Amino acid sequence: MSVTRVASVIRLRAEKETEYRTLHKEVWPGVLTTLRQNGVTNFSIFLRDGTLFSYLEYQGEDFEESMARIAADETTKEWWKLTDPCQQPVDSAIELEWWAPAEELFHLD
Amino acid sequence: MSVTRVASVIRLRAEKETEYRTLHKEVWPGVLTTLRQNGVTNFSIFLRDGTLFSYLEYQGEDFEESMARIAADETTKEWWKLTDPCQQPVDSAIELEWWAPAEELFHLD
Repeated sequence: MSVTRVASVIRLRAEKETEYRTLHKEVWPGVLTTLRQNGVTNFSIFLRDGTLFSYLEYQGEDFEESMARIAADETTKEWWKLTDPCQQPVDSAIELEWWAPAEELFHLD
Repeated sequence: MSVTRVASVIRLRAEKETEYRTLHKEVWPGVLTTLRQNGVTNFSIFLRDGTLFSYLEYQGEDFEESMARIAADETTKEWWKLTDPCQQPVDSAIELEWWAPAEELFHLD
């Protein structure tokens, strides 16, 4: 089982900041369970200057497949109905991209 | 021994991107040793859209003191003479702030 670090960015809509903060103080247990069951560990979301930065460690064999499973989870879909309106892809995101990947330049274990 | 997650951001000067990437492919061993000796673990630097985002886990009792020790290390000072010219604080940084802190909104272990 390999561990992959995954970082990505998205904009937080200023008028939705309070709502987004509140939601993330009590993320639904079903959302967290689905993340864990699909190999997502040590997952944090940070905010600076209106940009959200996520960092997570993926323990699994097929990240794309795991992300697809998460996206297919009914509870997660309901959760995203609340969080998606708070977010806006960065200007440089490609079409249909939501969270946009950041590139790892350096790592020290 | 507690573990603290620390995230921060800074701009990467476009004209220095190649140099910064090259430097970080082979960070000096003395720099890495000093980081480790001062409680810095699981440290990554990511890049997206000209912004560098760093994530690290600090295992120690006094983060400020550890950072001061790192800043006092001669090898690290020499290293920063190379990396500092590649970076520029974000517009929202406070005076004398270099890497500017990001706020953790969410964490899943």
